[in-house]
Amino acid sequence: MGVKRIAILGSTGSIGVSALDVIAAHPDRFRVVALAAGSNVGRLIEQARRFRPEVVALRDLSGVEQLRAALSGQPTAILAGDAGVERIGHWESADLVLSAMVGAAGLRPTWAALQSGKEVALANKECLVISGALFMNEAHRCGARIIPVDSEHSAIFQLLYNGRLTGVGAGPVFGPGHADVRLILTASGGPFRGWERDRLVQVTPEQALAHPNWSMGRKITIDSATCMNKGLEVIEAHHLFGIPAERIQVVIHPESIVHSMVAYPDGSVLAQMGVPDMRTPITVALAWPERIAAPVAPLDLPSMGKLHFLGPPDPEAFPCLSLAYAALQQGGAAPAILNGANEVAVAAFLGHEIGFADIPRLIQWTLEQNGPGTFGSVEELLAVDRWARDQAQLWIIRHGVGSGRR
Amino acid sequence: MGVKRIAILGSTGSIGVSALDVIAAHPDRFRVVALAAGSNVGRLIEQARRFRPEVVALRDLSGVEQLRAALSGQPTAILAGDAGVERIGHWESADLVLSAMVGAAGLRPTWAALQSGKEVALANKECLVISGALFMNEAHRCGARIIPVDSEHSAIFQLLYNGRLTGVGAGPVFGPGHADVRLILTASGGPFRGWERDRLVQVTPEQALAHPNWSMGRKITIDSATCMNKGLEVIEAHHLFGIPAERIQVVIHPESIVHSMVAYPDGSVLAQMGVPDMRTPITVALAWPERIAAPVAPLDLPSMGKLHFLGPPDPEAFPCLSLAYAALQQGGAAPAILNGANEVAVAAFLGHEIGFADIPRLIQWTLEQNGPGTFGSVEELLAVDRWARDQAQLWIIRHGVGSGRR
Repeated sequence: MGVKRIAILGSTGSIGVSALDVIAAHPDRFRVVALAAGSNVGRLIEQARRFRPEVVALRDLSGVEQLRAALSGQPTAILAGDAGVERIGHWESADLVLSAMVGAAGLRPTWAALQSGKEVALANKECLVISGALFMNEAHRCGARIIPVDSEHSAIFQLLYNGRLTGVGAGPVFGPGHADVRLILTASGGPFRGWERDRLVQVTPEQALAHPNWSMGRKITIDSATCMNKGLEVIEAHHLFGIPAERIQVVIHPESIVHSMVAYPDGSVLAQMGVPDMRTPITVALAWPERIAAPVAPLDLPSMGKLHFLGPPDPEAFPCLSLAYAALQQGGAAPAILNGANEVAVAAFLGHEIGFADIPRLIQWTLEQNGPGTFGSVEELLAVDRWARDQAQLWIIRHGVGSGRR
Repeated sequence: MGVKRIAILGSTGSIGVSALDVIAAHPDRFRVVALAAGSNVGRLIEQARRFRPEVVALRDLSGVEQLRAALSGQPTAILAGDAGVERIGHWESADLVLSAMVGAAGLRPTWAALQSGKEVALANKECLVISGALFMNEAHRCGARIIPVDSEHSAIFQLLYNGRLTGVGAGPVFGPGHADVRLILTASGGPFRGWERDRLVQVTPEQALAHPNWSMGRKITIDSATCMNKGLEVIEAHHLFGIPAERIQVVIHPESIVHSMVAYPDGSVLAQMGVPDMRTPITVALAWPERIAAPVAPLDLPSMGKLHFLGPPDPEAFPCLSLAYAALQQGGAAPAILNGANEVAVAAFLGHEIGFADIPRLIQWTLEQNGPGTFGSVEELLAVDRWARDQAQLWIIRHGVGSGRR
């Protein structure tokens, strides 16, 4: 087994930083050859100095001069803008591309990785949420090996594929008779678990950013508070594993120890557990099909004492989950519209432009507009995404804080 | 997929009866061709009338006339004695043999099944506890497909082999890098969980037979109360999955929902769960690699609310577990001696000849006698088993109730 050469899309984000932790713990197994970041030039410089990749790319053009100056002493090529980031996705010497750039910006470079035959460790949600069917068709066509990084999908992947050399896309997921499996995604319930709808109206961004279990990026933390993250995960799981929405359930599990489950008609329920630390699923994805040590605390169930399970989130208080199921059932462009509207809504909530309970309202309204019904290419899909964002902005102009509504 | 033809060794016991339940629910998939029982002639007659197998065998010669008379109206062949039961193990038309005869009596017919190339659904503990290395060597030599039925080993099997066509013996268990896996066997702790040593002295067979979660045979229920069942399972797991004793742990889990776990160095812990009903692992074993419906209640975690986990049993109060680990470490004939002495001890306890706390004492004493150190064949092994039983009887004569000690 040789050294695996890794490219990271989104190296300065939460997943990227954790991945570099894992990689640093295994210099005999992994080598960083390419890094791409959005705008955090300071951290990208640090990473480039430490890991000395062949190339780095910064999406934000305004930071490129600083990057160039800082790395002038080392033989690292420097790329910039969307095209530069996309180039990292199919960088020649990379064996595996970790797709961890948040948002639609991660879409094109991940497609580039897939199409150039790289192994893809997939942390970007949009590839599956926005372009699910298109993306998985392309994966199957390319025989791509995709290993999900998200803790829930990694859990299901590990349960379905344990001990097998393949990844999603590269071979059949299910053995014979595994077709009527059910997936059970666990949700921590976020900081507002058990709250009623009326109480949620007053929630501030600061309260919503205080997630009890996971340390994550801001966007994902808000998605966790609204339960939209679970809705997006349902859509992802549907595409990744080919399971219809009605056989994907959500169960609340406050401790975030059981990361998801797979249920069979014979009564067996398989679960993947671990302490809530993204370095475990990242290690799984980077090393698959091997199992290597991760720099995480081992799970000690007796010292925890007990694990709790509750029914799914209250749909009155957390309508985002139902909106996601509805968008998945509707199909076509609906999940892309849901996702675009949600991104705008979360940003507006973080900017104190709209309230917490406005997030699902804005999304529902956007879904109800007479938007595009379907798409056949990445270009059309990005147009859908832009349309959804424009509509969502319209809603904010009409109903947000600046509108004089309050 | 054709109909799978099934032979059952031990059809009138707890596992056999549950297996016939599962088979009756899937007449399109399974057909019973052969049944063997120990002494319960009444139930064997019922089963033979209902399932109309090609052959039945009764180990207890005294019931054969009754059996013959009762089945005179149907074309079922009738065999008797140890030789008759062994014949069921390699009955020509059987595809799969469920080995569920309790005790050393199950050994020879299971070997016969293995050597005749049948698929073996293994519920008999003695094949692995007494003759582990010998049995697994033979399995590998024959390329036999063994699917464990015991809930703990079925759990581990499902986690390691999910979606794969093979069984233990027929192919490599582990993918690359899966070698440093740890196994975590769960134990309910039995009816005396948390009791101190002094309190256990007064325990009666009636108390010990009241297991909180599982409905099982009497011998196994007592083994569960002493924690010897977990010790025997550690030995079995060692042989089945090729994992050294020091990487097999026991954790107490009172609800018996998590049936066992597999832990990886990356922090992932995979678990198999389900309601405590043997029809789930039996269905898994009969249908593998397919997954079909079992006549069991589905697991509903939210309605359970929580699952508890505690450290391993107190070795002062439950020395049987440590005795089993020690016998496994010692190797050779020691596990066979442990098992033989335990069978005698449990029978003596059920017969009110010795006390609950005498069970480990008797076993330890037997292990300390200058017994046979090793064996190279099934015949030698059965001699070891007889030697251990004789020694154990000696202890009872000296220390049991009839000895005038109390």
